[in-house]
Amino acid sequence: MSQREVIVEFLSIGSELIKGEHEDNNSPYLSRELSKLGLQCRRVTVLPDFPHSWLVQTLQTLFKRSHLLILTGGLGPTEDDVTREAIAKALGKKLIFHPPLLEAILKRFKKRNLVMPRINKRQAYLPQGAQAIPNPLGSAPGILMEVNKKILISLPGVPVEMQAMFEKSVRPLLMRRFPNLSPSPSVFLRTTGLAESRVNELLQEIIRKEKKITFGFYAHPGIVDIKLLADSPRDLKILRKVAQEARRRLGPFLYGEGNRTLEETVFRLLEKKKKWVSVAESCTGGALSEALTRVPGSSRHFKVGVVAYSHEAKNALLKVPNRLIRLHGAVSPEVASSLAEQAKRLGQTDFGIGVTGILGPGGGTKQKPVGLVYIALASQVKRICHRFNFVGEREIIRERVVKVALDLLRRELLK
Amino acid sequence: MSQREVIVEFLSIGSELIKGEHEDNNSPYLSRELSKLGLQCRRVTVLPDFPHSWLVQTLQTLFKRSHLLILTGGLGPTEDDVTREAIAKALGKKLIFHPPLLEAILKRFKKRNLVMPRINKRQAYLPQGAQAIPNPLGSAPGILMEVNKKILISLPGVPVEMQAMFEKSVRPLLMRRFPNLSPSPSVFLRTTGLAESRVNELLQEIIRKEKKITFGFYAHPGIVDIKLLADSPRDLKILRKVAQEARRRLGPFLYGEGNRTLEETVFRLLEKKKKWVSVAESCTGGALSEALTRVPGSSRHFKVGVVAYSHEAKNALLKVPNRLIRLHGAVSPEVASSLAEQAKRLGQTDFGIGVTGILGPGGGTKQKPVGLVYIALASQVKRICHRFNFVGEREIIRERVVKVALDLLRRELLK
Repeated sequence: MSQREVIVEFLSIGSELIKGEHEDNNSPYLSRELSKLGLQCRRVTVLPDFPHSWLVQTLQTLFKRSHLLILTGGLGPTEDDVTREAIAKALGKKLIFHPPLLEAILKRFKKRNLVMPRINKRQAYLPQGAQAIPNPLGSAPGILMEVNKKILISLPGVPVEMQAMFEKSVRPLLMRRFPNLSPSPSVFLRTTGLAESRVNELLQEIIRKEKKITFGFYAHPGIVDIKLLADSPRDLKILRKVAQEARRRLGPFLYGEGNRTLEETVFRLLEKKKKWVSVAESCTGGALSEALTRVPGSSRHFKVGVVAYSHEAKNALLKVPNRLIRLHGAVSPEVASSLAEQAKRLGQTDFGIGVTGILGPGGGTKQKPVGLVYIALASQVKRICHRFNFVGEREIIRERVVKVALDLLRRELLK
Repeated sequence: MSQREVIVEFLSIGSELIKGEHEDNNSPYLSRELSKLGLQCRRVTVLPDFPHSWLVQTLQTLFKRSHLLILTGGLGPTEDDVTREAIAKALGKKLIFHPPLLEAILKRFKKRNLVMPRINKRQAYLPQGAQAIPNPLGSAPGILMEVNKKILISLPGVPVEMQAMFEKSVRPLLMRRFPNLSPSPSVFLRTTGLAESRVNELLQEIIRKEKKITFGFYAHPGIVDIKLLADSPRDLKILRKVAQEARRRLGPFLYGEGNRTLEETVFRLLEKKKKWVSVAESCTGGALSEALTRVPGSSRHFKVGVVAYSHEAKNALLKVPNRLIRLHGAVSPEVASSLAEQAKRLGQTDFGIGVTGILGPGGGTKQKPVGLVYIALASQVKRICHRFNFVGEREIIRERVVKVALDLLRRELLK
């Protein structure tokens, strides 16, 4: 069976998931792990514990249309844990009591000097024909059923237990059952400074030309990621060619690949060029310094950050001339440039970055509306200042300003 | 139609969700918001963007069996955004071009001094009979279709856009369409300074005694939230009594209720007491200043923050005596206290907070291991310094340190 033919579905069971009290973190984990094996999940369904009839019906539908169905949740000892019964009913099997399973559960309680509550006895039952999947971290064993070359796997909903069981039992099992899988190769390109639609436009021609490569776009504040996924391992060569063309088209907007964050890219450039940076920020309130110190080892490149929220702080601590603030206002290219210059001087660093703006929701005027931000950079040889009109909520603008400031430094370091 | 009869389903669309690259945060948000209105989601389905036929088929099935179907994702301008087309196909409608929608999108780009990429024109199309749901934060309008008393709502996948549209348009719409719903009452208590298991222990007795109230626990770095949910609107009185007892047991660890963040609680206390604060932080790298300036209006209470990553910065800018650093090391109660004192002096504020520590992964020694953090507070009348040994990853420790520092200030402001 090739990977294209294996239909994989997940079913996450739990009222807490459907009520929004917990996110379903199990499906993303399983998706990532399966895709490393070359298996792609097709669909995730999330259901509450009750009513029982929905669960049984959905199980029947999913089991019918998939080759591999992985369930998470509902294996605990309490009344609202109904997965065991639902599997039995959906597949028309009886529940069979397994004395060795009960012994294992009893032993687990004894080891912790506890008496097993009677309700835990339920966990020693399995649908007829099923095998138990050992649970090293909890009392609920998992369930493995193989019927007509179809595989059903049921795991507990507690993420640590589920993950331990996946690693110890499920992954080896899947590797035995699907020995010929190999994951489709992919490339992950990360850009900053462009809107998602603009990134798409830059790549549109190659997207349309090369149908064996699927493009995915993922936008975060200030960042657009692009995933290029080949249809099969045979398409590796095409993927490489297409990725190379994509890199060429993205040019300097491409800041990194894979897991690399913009913060890491800037950090590595500072390392490489042996440069130091300092920051004087107003509206970002510390977020730019925080970003520049997020990577371990930042103390080798980041000297000082000043969060100058008030005019007095800008003047007294940073020596931004009061005259400048009076003449041009605190949100002005003049003050941004002065902040950058003073940060550089205070830290005695190669670069200084200055940020001033109005993040809102209040504080905007007709001349200086919410979203107006000046970002300046001072180096040994030059001063740059850019003006931006951001749109959106305070938190989002803050994140975008940070990315733009990091990118300004990145581009300077690339020169 | 009573709430029991309204069948609600969600469909989240996006390959990034099915591949485990992003969690589906939209469904939990919608679940929570709908349950406030008295609507309960029955089932969540997550599907990739491709193949188109699955999406169309699933849409047909879900629309047939539900009264209210909410879709998120796939409304962007790019090639992989296919929800618009899928809805039209599933319901047998044509896509109709709406000139006013295009104008709104063009205006949005113009406002930001950008030329609209041609692909954005796709976002001006709606299935025949549909209404646009305005998107105040992005270019993609949402889609509202009402067919045979059934409602289909399609929202973008970007959480901030989706949430803004829900609040402005979808919630009012649902309240008009389902006027007779009444949600089960709940209380949301937020604590800081206690581990989840300790919170659970404090409340164990009332959890066991009162079966009509369901307790949910949600742990974030430095924060544990508790949700008390009544079985039905009839249990409001019991809920109030139980919540009062829970508040009593949590005591000063309860910092707020509902949506209130710890940052907001601190901000409101600063407002109430008309106090100012300044910060000198080392290992948190700006994160504490960022937290203190996150609430709009912070400039009325936050004067200055200094991120002193290097010894020189601590000495030159903050006047922390070199002798102190030489004698006790940069990570010491003496230096933390001095940072707090100097922050207070620099900003001429009522309070100064000082933070110094080792966040790792490198930099630890046997005497001063990774996770060792000193947090100090200086006021007109006193100095406090606490020592902590945090465990975990750099990012998580950073968040926890910020919460502990905020809590130190909160408790001082409560006195």
